[in-house]
Formats: sequence, C-alpha cells, structure tokens
Amino acid sequence: MSERIRMGLIGGGPGSFIGPVHRIAAELDREIVLVAGAFSRDPQRSAEAGRGYGIDPSRAYASVEAMLEAEAAREDGIQFVTIASPNSHHLPAARAAIAAGIAVMSDKPMTATLAEARELADLLAADAVPYGLTYTYSGYPLVREMRERIAAGAVGPIRKVIVEYNQGWLAGAGEGKQAEWRLDPTRSGEGGCIADIGVHAFHLAEFVTGLRVNRINADLGTVVPGRLLDDDCQMFLRFDNGARGLLMASQVMTGEGNDLAIRIYGENGGYRWSQENPNRLEWLRGDGGFEVIRAADSGLSAVAMRGTRLPGGHPEGLLESLANLYRDFAMQLRGESGSLVPGVEDGLRGMALVATAVAASREERGWIDFTV
Amino acid sequence: MSERIRMGLIGGGPGSFIGPVHRIAAELDREIVLVAGAFSRDPQRSAEAGRGYGIDPSRAYASVEAMLEAEAAREDGIQFVTIASPNSHHLPAARAAIAAGIAVMSDKPMTATLAEARELADLLAADAVPYGLTYTYSGYPLVREMRERIAAGAVGPIRKVIVEYNQGWLAGAGEGKQAEWRLDPTRSGEGGCIADIGVHAFHLAEFVTGLRVNRINADLGTVVPGRLLDDDCQMFLRFDNGARGLLMASQVMTGEGNDLAIRIYGENGGYRWSQENPNRLEWLRGDGGFEVIRAADSGLSAVAMRGTRLPGGHPEGLLESLANLYRDFAMQLRGESGSLVPGVEDGLRGMALVATAVAASREERGWIDFTV
Amino acid sequence: MSERIRMGLIGGGPGSFIGPVHRIAAELDREIVLVAGAFSRDPQRSAEAGRGYGIDPSRAYASVEAMLEAEAAREDGIQFVTIASPNSHHLPAARAAIAAGIAVMSDKPMTATLAEARELADLLAADAVPYGLTYTYSGYPLVREMRERIAAGAVGPIRKVIVEYNQGWLAGAGEGKQAEWRLDPTRSGEGGCIADIGVHAFHLAEFVTGLRVNRINADLGTVVPGRLLDDDCQMFLRFDNGARGLLMASQVMTGEGNDLAIRIYGENGGYRWSQENPNRLEWLRGDGGFEVIRAADSGLSAVAMRGTRLPGGHPEGLLESLANLYRDFAMQLRGESGSLVPGVEDGLRGMALVATAVAASREERGWIDFTV
Amino acid sequence: MSERIRMGLIGGGPGSFIGPVHRIAAELDREIVLVAGAFSRDPQRSAEAGRGYGIDPSRAYASVEAMLEAEAAREDGIQFVTIASPNSHHLPAARAAIAAGIAVMSDKPMTATLAEARELADLLAADAVPYGLTYTYSGYPLVREMRERIAAGAVGPIRKVIVEYNQGWLAGAGEGKQAEWRLDPTRSGEGGCIADIGVHAFHLAEFVTGLRVNRINADLGTVVPGRLLDDDCQMFLRFDNGARGLLMASQVMTGEGNDLAIRIYGENGGYRWSQENPNRLEWLRGDGGFEVIRAADSGLSAVAMRGTRLPGGHPEGLLESLANLYRDFAMQLRGESGSLVPGVEDGLRGMALVATAVAASREERGWIDFTV
Repeated sequence: MSERIRMGLIGGGPGSFIGPVHRIAAELDREIVLVAGAFSRDPQRSAEAGRGYGIDPSRAYASVEAMLEAEAAREDGIQFVTIASPNSHHLPAARAAIAAGIAVMSDKPMTATLAEARELADLLAADAVPYGLTYTYSGYPLVREMRERIAAGAVGPIRKVIVEYNQGWLAGAGEGKQAEWRLDPTRSGEGGCIADIGVHAFHLAEFVTGLRVNRINADLGTVVPGRLLDDDCQMFLRFDNGARGLLMASQVMTGEGNDLAIRIYGENGGYRWSQENPNRLEWLRGDGGFEVIRAADSGLSAVAMRGTRLPGGHPEGLLESLANLYRDFAMQLRGESGSLVPGVEDGLRGMALVATAVAASREERGWIDFTV
Repeated sequence: MSERIRMGLIGGGPGSFIGPVHRIAAELDREIVLVAGAFSRDPQRSAEAGRGYGIDPSRAYASVEAMLEAEAAREDGIQFVTIASPNSHHLPAARAAIAAGIAVMSDKPMTATLAEARELADLLAADAVPYGLTYTYSGYPLVREMRERIAAGAVGPIRKVIVEYNQGWLAGAGEGKQAEWRLDPTRSGEGGCIADIGVHAFHLAEFVTGLRVNRINADLGTVVPGRLLDDDCQMFLRFDNGARGLLMASQVMTGEGNDLAIRIYGENGGYRWSQENPNRLEWLRGDGGFEVIRAADSGLSAVAMRGTRLPGGHPEGLLESLANLYRDFAMQLRGESGSLVPGVEDGLRGMALVATAVAASREERGWIDFTV
Repeated sequence: MSERIRMGLIGGGPGSFIGPVHRIAAELDREIVLVAGAFSRDPQRSAEAGRGYGIDPSRAYASVEAMLEAEAAREDGIQFVTIASPNSHHLPAARAAIAAGIAVMSDKPMTATLAEARELADLLAADAVPYGLTYTYSGYPLVREMRERIAAGAVGPIRKVIVEYNQGWLAGAGEGKQAEWRLDPTRSGEGGCIADIGVHAFHLAEFVTGLRVNRINADLGTVVPGRLLDDDCQMFLRFDNGARGLLMASQVMTGEGNDLAIRIYGENGGYRWSQENPNRLEWLRGDGGFEVIRAADSGLSAVAMRGTRLPGGHPEGLLESLANLYRDFAMQLRGESGSLVPGVEDGLRGMALVATAVAASREERGWIDFTV
Repeated sequence: MSERIRMGLIGGGPGSFIGPVHRIAAELDREIVLVAGAFSRDPQRSAEAGRGYGIDPSRAYASVEAMLEAEAAREDGIQFVTIASPNSHHLPAARAAIAAGIAVMSDKPMTATLAEARELADLLAADAVPYGLTYTYSGYPLVREMRERIAAGAVGPIRKVIVEYNQGWLAGAGEGKQAEWRLDPTRSGEGGCIADIGVHAFHLAEFVTGLRVNRINADLGTVVPGRLLDDDCQMFLRFDNGARGLLMASQVMTGEGNDLAIRIYGENGGYRWSQENPNRLEWLRGDGGFEVIRAADSGLSAVAMRGTRLPGGHPEGLLESLANLYRDFAMQLRGESGSLVPGVEDGLRGMALVATAVAASREERGWIDFTV
C-alpha cells in the first residue's frame, strides 16, 4: 500500500452526525487519513472537534480558506476535502477547494439550488480536480451487483422501477440540530425531503438501471403544518427506454427508520433490494424461480466482491458502503480507473430533479419533461 | 345453527379457478350450501360442472334465467346467487336475480362499465334485495383489526396511505383462460389491471382508513405490446381529510405473485400489512416502538376474532378470508346486523375509479376530482 | 365426483377447538360430509353440538356404541369415524369402530400409551379397515414437495436434521379446557409435550427425510412447578443412515405460537421450512445458491400441486393442509392408491417415542436404541 | 480524545482474513492505532503484510519476541498486542507479552487446550496485565441490550435457552487456508467446530443470560469422513438456576452462512436475536405482545447506545461489533470502568467446554457436571 491520502474535513463539528461517519468510512481501509478540518466557523468549536477526531490541534481551522492556505504551505498538506456542511455551504466550500487545486468529495445534494450546481459544474469543467458525491447507498456491494447484472442483461429490457425512501423522523415537530437546518430553506435550499432523501432514491434508480429519467409527474407536499419545505414526495417517472417508474420519499411516515428500497422489473426477471437489510438481494427469475443473493456469495461480480471485507453471513453496513465510495475515490486520486463514485452529472441531475419537481408540483403541472 | 342458506352459482364452469373458491368459502362454516348453478351456457359443460361440485344433476342449468325459474318453483330453491362469471355478465346476471327477488353476491368489479354499475345501483335501490361484493381481502381478520383500531383513533389523523398490488402473471404474453377474458375489453370492460386488481387496492385503502378519495392523478399504461387494456397502474390519491396517497397495481412485475399490501401512517403511528403474509400486522407506534400483531392474538377486537377459526400460529388464508365475507352475507340474509361485506357504494366507487382513471390517464390530465 | 363419503365424529363437543377443524377440513373439497356424531357422553351436550354442526338432530349420539349401532342400520349410515376426543379415548373408540367394520381417522397421538397402540395395531392387522392418523402438518404442499425432492436425491445423503416445535401457551398455569386434559395423565397418557407436539415433530422429520430414527438421547423436563407431565423436550437423534438429528418441542417458550419448523442438510444442499409461514420453502443449494420455493410455483411436483387450491401468492393454511389428509383418506376409502395419510406404523413409532423418551429421560440413560 | 493507544498485531499475515478485521475494528473509533506487527515468521511475508497495513516497514517483525523487544525500546512502542494467529500460538504469544508487561487482546478460543488455558490464567493472575478475548458477537448493541434487560428482570426467571451457530462452509472437503488449520489438531487443538464456533455460542448464552452452565450432555460428531476433529455439535445444557438449554453448532449445514442465533425464555417473556440480522431484537412479551426492538431505537440502554454510531435504520455490522470490544478494551487500558470485554474467566469456561464436551461425547457419558 502506498502512503495514505490526506483528507481535510469541512463541517462535522461538535454534535455532527455525519462528520464522524465520513471520518470512519474514509479511514476504514487505511487508504485515506483525516489530518485537518474546518469543522466550525467558531474557532473554539473547531478546536474541540479536532480534539474529538484526534488530529493535530494546529490543523483544526475556523474557515475553509484558512485550512486551504495553511495546508497548501505544508509538505504533508491535505490532498482533498470532504464537504459535510449544510447544503448552502456546498458551493462556496467547493469553489474554494477548486481554486486551490484540491479535489472535492461532497455530501449530497450537490448544492442548495440548481443554479449553484450549474456554477459548480462549470468550475469543475474548467479546473478539473477530481470531484465525488457521496450518494452513500451506491456503495453497497449488492447494489453494485444488481447494476452489473442488469447491465449484463439479466432482467432484459426494463419495464418498471419502484424506488422508495421512507423515514419517520420528521413526523413530529422535528427538533434537534439535524432537523433544524434541513427544514430551513436558507440552509437547505428549495427542496426539503426531495433534496434530503429523494435525490438518493433518484440516483439509486438511475445508477442501478443505467437508464435516465426523461419525464416526471410530481406530487410533493408538506404534511406537518408550518413547514416551508416539502416533507413527503411521490413522483411518476418515465425513463429514456420507455420504462415506467415511481419514486416515493417521505420523512413523515411515523415509525419508519431509513427504508430505502428498490424494485426493478424487466421482461426476463426482477430484483428487489432494501437498505435496511442490505446483505440480501432478491432475484425473481423470469421462469418463476426466486433466488436470494447474499453479500459475499461465491459467484458475485468482481465489483461487488471488491466492496466486501468479510465472508458471507458476517453483516456489513452503511459505514462499509460509504467506505467503498472512499476507496473508489482514492483510486481516482491515484489516477486509477474503475471508480464508481457518483460525480458532476449525478449531482446536476439530482439538483435538476429538486428544482423541476418543486416547481411542477407547486403548480400541479402533471407530466413535464425532465432535462438537466 | 339454523338451516343452511341455499346458494346458486353463476359461472364457475369446468376449468374455472374462482368457482370452486366461492364454493369452498361459502360452505366453509356450514351456514351456506351450494345447491344449484348456471355454470355454463353450454348444457353439457354446466352438467359436467354440476357433477364436479357434487350437486343434484337436475339443478345444473344452462342459463341464469332457467335456474331462477326452476329454483323459484321449488320449496327448497336457492336463496341467493353468487356471480362468478366475467365482468360483462355481472349486470345481466344481477338484473335477472333482482327481478326474481333473489339476493346477489357478486365478484368484483361490480360490472364492466360505470354506466352498467349505475344501472345496477338503481335496480338495487328500487328492488332492495341484499347485495354483496367480494372484495375478498377485506375479510382477513387483521385487515378488519386495522380498520377497527384506526376507527378508534390508534394512528390519529391519517396523513399518508400507500396501497399496492403487485403481480407478475401477465408479464409474458398472457396465455390461458384466466388471461384471455381479462385482456379482452368486450368481456372485461374498459379497465385491465385497474379493474382486475386496482379496485381491490382502492377498496382496501378506503375500507381500512374509513376515508374517501376525492382527487386522483392517474398514470395507467400498457407495457406488453399489443394489449388493448392497461396492465400497469400508478396513481396519486388525495383523501377527503387531506391525506396523501399512492396506489400501485401491476400485472407485469415479473416474478411477483399476489402481493397486495397496505401501509397507513397517521400522526401517532402507522400500520403495515401484506396479503402474502396475512396473519401478521405491523404496528409502528408513534413513540418509536414497533409491534407485531398476530392473527388470533389475545387482545384483538371482536370483529377480528370472529374471523379466525384457529388459535394463534395456525395459518389461515384466502379461503378463510372469503369465507368471512360469506358468513357476513349470511348474517345479512338472516336480517342480522354487523356485516362488513362491501356493497353497492363500494362497487360504484370502484367502477368510477376505473372510468375516471382510464380517461384521465389517456389524456394526461394530471389531477382531477374524483366523484361517483 | 361420486357421492360424498359419510363421516361420524367422535368428540368435538361444545367448546371443542379441534372438532370444527376436522369438520371444515373433511368437507372442504366436498368429498366427505359430516352426518353424525358422538360428540359428548352427555346427551344434551351432544345434541347441542349436533345443532352447531347443522346435522340431523337424530344423528347426534351420546356414545360411540350408540352411533355405530344406529348408523349401521341406515342405508346412508356413516362410512368412517373421525376420533377427536382426548388421547385416552382413542383406543376404545377405534376398537368399537373396527369391530363395526368402520374405517377410522384419528387424531394423534395414536393412543395414550404404547401398550394401547400395540393393541390397536393388532386389531387393525386382524380386521383391516382403513386407518389414518392426522399428523396434520404432513398435508402442507411444501412439506410434500420437500419429501418428493429429497426422495429424488436433491440434497444427497442426509447428514443433519433439526426439527423443532415451539409453543408458549402453557408457559403460565395452563387454564382452560385445552390445557386441562393435556396436563392430566389419566386423559393424556404418559407424555405431556412430547405426546402433544413432540410426535408431530418426530413424524415430520421421518416423513420428509424418508429416514428412520434408531437411537435417541432424550432430555424431557417439567418447567412449570406442579405439573405431572413434561412440558419441554429436547432430544438428540440418530437416523438409520447415520445422520445426526435434533428434536425440540416445548410448550413453555413464552410468546411462541405454533412454531413447527424443520431444517434438513445433505451433502448437496439443504431445506428449511416453517409452519407459521407454510407457503415458502427455502432451498440452500450445494453450490452456494439460495432459492425460495413458493406454494403453487410452476415446477412443483404433482403431489404438491394436488394439495394446492389457489394460484401462487394466495395463502393457504392449516385447514387446507388437514383437508389434504382427508382428501387422501377419501382416496384410500375409494380404494385408490397414492394416499400419503400417516397410518399404523407412524402411530406406533410416535407412541414408542413417547414411551422411550419419557423413561430414558427420567433415568438419564443417555443414548439408547430406539425400536418400536 | 487522548492520544491513540498503540497496538501490535500477532498473526494476520498475507492472505489472512482475520488480521485486517482486527485492524479495521481496532482503529474504527480512532482510539487505537496499529503501529507494529509480528505478522508471520517469514520475514518477507511479515514485511509484505506490514506494507499492506501501511505501517512503518521497520516495525514489521518476524517473531513476537523480536517485536516485544524492539518496541519496548521505543518511546512510542506498542501498548498492547492482538493475537490473531492459530489457536496453538495463543499461549506462547500471550506468555511473551505478559512477560514483557504488555496487555493482550486475543482471538478466541483462549488457547488450544484446557491445560494451556489454565497456565495462561495463572500467568495473568500473577502478572496482571489487561487481557481481553474477542468473543466478537458480544459487542453487538442489541446483544448488550438483551443482557441489560434480562439483568433488570425483563423476562423473569429464565427457563429455557437455545443458542445455535450454523455454518456450511466445511460441508465440502474444506479447502483453503482458513479450513486447513482449523481441521488440524496440532494447530487447532482438541476441538474442531466446538472450539471454532461452539465456544462463541456458549459465551453468548452465558453473557446474555448472566447464568452459568453447570451440567452438559454433549453429542459431538464428525460428519465429513476423514476428519480428525468434530464438525457438528449438539449439547443439552443445564444452568445454575435450573434453566434448561440447548446448544447447536455445525459447520456442515450446507448453504448456511454464519447463523449465530439465540432465544431466551423466562416466566415473563422471551427474546430472539440472530447475528445475520443483528439490528433487530424480538421481544415476546409475557402478555402475548410481540415487539421488535431496532438498533438505535430511542429507549435503548446506555450500554447499547454506546455501541451504535448511526441513527436507526442505518445498518451496522460485525466490524462495528468488534470495534465495540476494542473501544471497551481501550477503556480498560485507560483504567476506566464499564468494559464488557470478555476475559480470563470466559476464556477458561470456553476451553473447559471444549475439553469436557469432546471427552464426554466420545465416551457417550450422557449427563456430566460442568466445572472449570
């Protein structure tokens, strides 16, 4: 193994849920190491976070700019940043990193608005630093297995795709730090549930099928009174091959946890997969047979096997899935091919979905074309 | 137990799947007995069916009219008919029975078209014979339990309802007697999948929640080339209390069996139930708890317990669910109260759904009001 | 269909759980009809039960003898009896029927003691009337499918069998009519849990594998203080081909319903099946694949398909499983071949298991030979 | 966070499965860091492994002794070792570490033989360095939750415990490095399956219930011809409170993965948990209710919550479970209380189980006392 790639974290300050998740996942395979961070704009809080992560105290900064400048001056400075701050910070943070010639791994959604996403895409096109987007669930081995098999023709022409993402944690008033910024348009952007989890579902559908959505009919709603953003979404989809689809995403399904699930049906068979039980993939054969594919089963594709660290029957979970994205991103940074990390196009499509669905739903436009 | 109520079967001739199902379910509790039938218009086939059912050979008729006339002349003649013929026969059969003052239990959908359904409703209003509609799945004990608990306020105000009915048996060309008439508009009516199974899903949603749909946005499609009717449906729903809903029904989800399932979420909790595993109801408590309610658990409502014949852990299935409708219908015929058998209004609403959804989807009208 | 075979029921009086179950199952396919009964020794209670079943009041008798005599005098008298009374009545009831030349279908266990079972076997050998034993679970289509496939070599030489039967309904003091007689040695015999459900598990293991147990090491216990009979059993098994096995049966596993389950492993694969989810059979292929076989899947054996009445995805349950035994018994009565109803040998083996296990466990004998 | 604790790995050379698992788990929370290793006795292979782990090349040693000596001379030398070599190396490696005053974290089983285990226990008693044993599965949050609840009286007096560990990977000839040493008594010790996985099941049962086994009746067997050690085990247990138990462990259940599962029943309720679905705990309430407890549900005990890194619905798996043991071990090393890492007594009991069961089973002794 070559030396570890050095990462700087943006966001992930004290109390953050996602910051430590990125740290664990990035470091899991010892290809990457967290060495610096702009964890908070409050110097004391950033220093506190730095202590929590166990990094050199002098490398806990109070701004992205300060981090980029100071790290650039070191021989062992950071080689990429991970952006884990609220959506409205994604563009400024990425812009600064790109200007500094530093690669970017970013939380989804790409930005807070579609206009910002386009700006970021332009910046990346001009100054090509590697850019990755953590659609975390695309790292699960069996998700990648499904994708491989479908690409190889397992289900035949796809006819129907149902993707859903059911949560209940915002069924109540939505207290706490996690809820707060997500429900605030100034930090979250124009989409609520659609931007927070709907884009995950959307990306999963396109990632696994290899198809692209080209028409939608969206029904977004706000269930809990007083909210400014949608908290429940349902959407009909049409894919470029004519396949019919359905996307559901909700944060008010009382009692649901993190139930992202996809079902795909083609002429010759179907697949069912659910994130809450990620080490199991159901394969409905066209001849009536029904098989269960287990993570780390012999016979899985190389891509899926690359994403497992344990033999069959030893559960791996979300951290390992995200770690797979980081491992792919490390491949990219080393100039190797084969990475499946989502990138600019996936980011733009997600932001376009948010913008299009929010507008179309508000005006009850019915079917509209979906373009990016 | 008083004497058994005598039933005549319309349809259910040789090779029929649903005829014997009605016979078994109707007789299961020994409150009803099959004594006569107009099983087929072909006298020989009707006689053959009669032998199969084990009835008196002289009571296997070649037409509904012949049956009604001959049975009326007997002291021990039939007291009601069950209509189990293709949709386009529902109205004529019911009309004849009503004219003869004979009660009617009918397969869903009510008729082949909404106009026919209205005519039938008018006939029933004028000459009030008991009329029941076999939305079979509403007889499951745990469906009724959900309904009771929701009516008692268990989930609080309902916010979201997802009902789906996934089948795969028409993913191929659709051969065989069962497929044939369902794919033929002259026998099936204007709806394909929506009329065959979509109405089951729709009824279940309204039955369990006690709510009524008042707006829809429908997306019906024909996936297998050459078909004249829809084979895949998806629909956004709005209920009269403002709740948001989603209805899916498909017959081209390769590999799926008979996966009717419903999820209901209110302010204070949610329920999940699936027909393929009918003796289990999931209760997501608003406080984060998750309980599994099992058929015949102590603590179930009287209505649910009335529908179970076995102690917990001894599976009951579809025949028993349909038998519960027959037992309720027998109560109705005896003039007792408490029956939960679906009736005219449920039938009309189903037919209105078919008509409205087919038209609205064809023209891509987006949201439209749903009235009957 | 020929005329229905006439059945007389012994036991199944007011409040009985199993009486109506036999009635429903026997009549389900219209090959058999209940016409008479010795439901109780109390004439009024027998008459009351007769009314409940809806039979001719004159055919509700107060003793087996009275029934046999009166029915023998009728042209349309009963053709077989079903014995559904407590274990200690099984032998006298069967003896009387055999003496009258009447076929016998009996609840398990065969008798209350092994000595009685031997006596009954001798009677049957001498006066050969058809005799069936309702090891109900052997009627499930997927149980029969497993048996067929194993017989055809699917798993190769069998190495390991785990069969378990977990209930919790006697975890408390055990009140109610059902508990009362089962806990009373004078009515139940020398075995408690082992005789009530252990023999089901034992029969299932031998039925499905086609193997015969020839050694056991038994550990029976009484968990709830004050009981005279075992309420929890565990047993190592050795089969005649050398396969290793394990049998568990308990009625004090608080919260369990009726969890009979079997797992069988051979050199080339394994099967898993559970009664609480009976329409699903798991097939672990020797090459690492894992398939789910669903009731009524195309490709099932003729024997399994014969036991299903509904297409895939429409659940069938315990009543249908028992009905399959009755249908097979009707075949036997008509002199047709192919019946899979358990008989004398199965009954004797079950009784030998009870006697052997009770004695061996009490004395902590460890491994002992198992012979009948 | 204070500085990371420095770990040296013994074993885990090229091709090792368990070495990287220890590395990932130990480092997951950034409390521990791998800095050195005696990965192989072959210097080149040890160096190769060192490169794979990304450690300083000078700290990849070719013997435990060399590592201990060289590291002792450094200011930043290792603070504990993890022993991940085959069983027969456990004692020598631990002995050397103890002599050097270095703490020990060891793979199970404790040693290859009971005599060795006693020697090790004596060494530890004399020179008290911290000692931990990676019964990995005891780190799962819901396992610890069960333990907490049971200790608090949730199920009342325990009556019955069923623990099973089903694998199929040695159903064939058992090729590959992992199989090879496990099937070789000179490296594995006197137990095969019982030592490899049976002790996990045994520890889990005692850990969760807080009870101690005091009698056993063991049936160990060798299913695949030619093997020198057991590959299939079944055992009756009796606990010190009189509870009845059953332990199964097998490596020849064709098609099974890593199915460790436990069921515990008391007077007032029962629990069911399965390692292949570790984020779900089933709670059978004594009143008939059935609840599902999900990892990270609000309401879990502090001990369980401490072991989760993600909100509900985001699966965590085996690496995180083992990481929980390492985090606890770090607490121990820092002199903090509250660690749940298994230790000497657990190790001794496991080794006693192997020795007792192997001997008792070989001689078919039936019930024998179990003491350590």
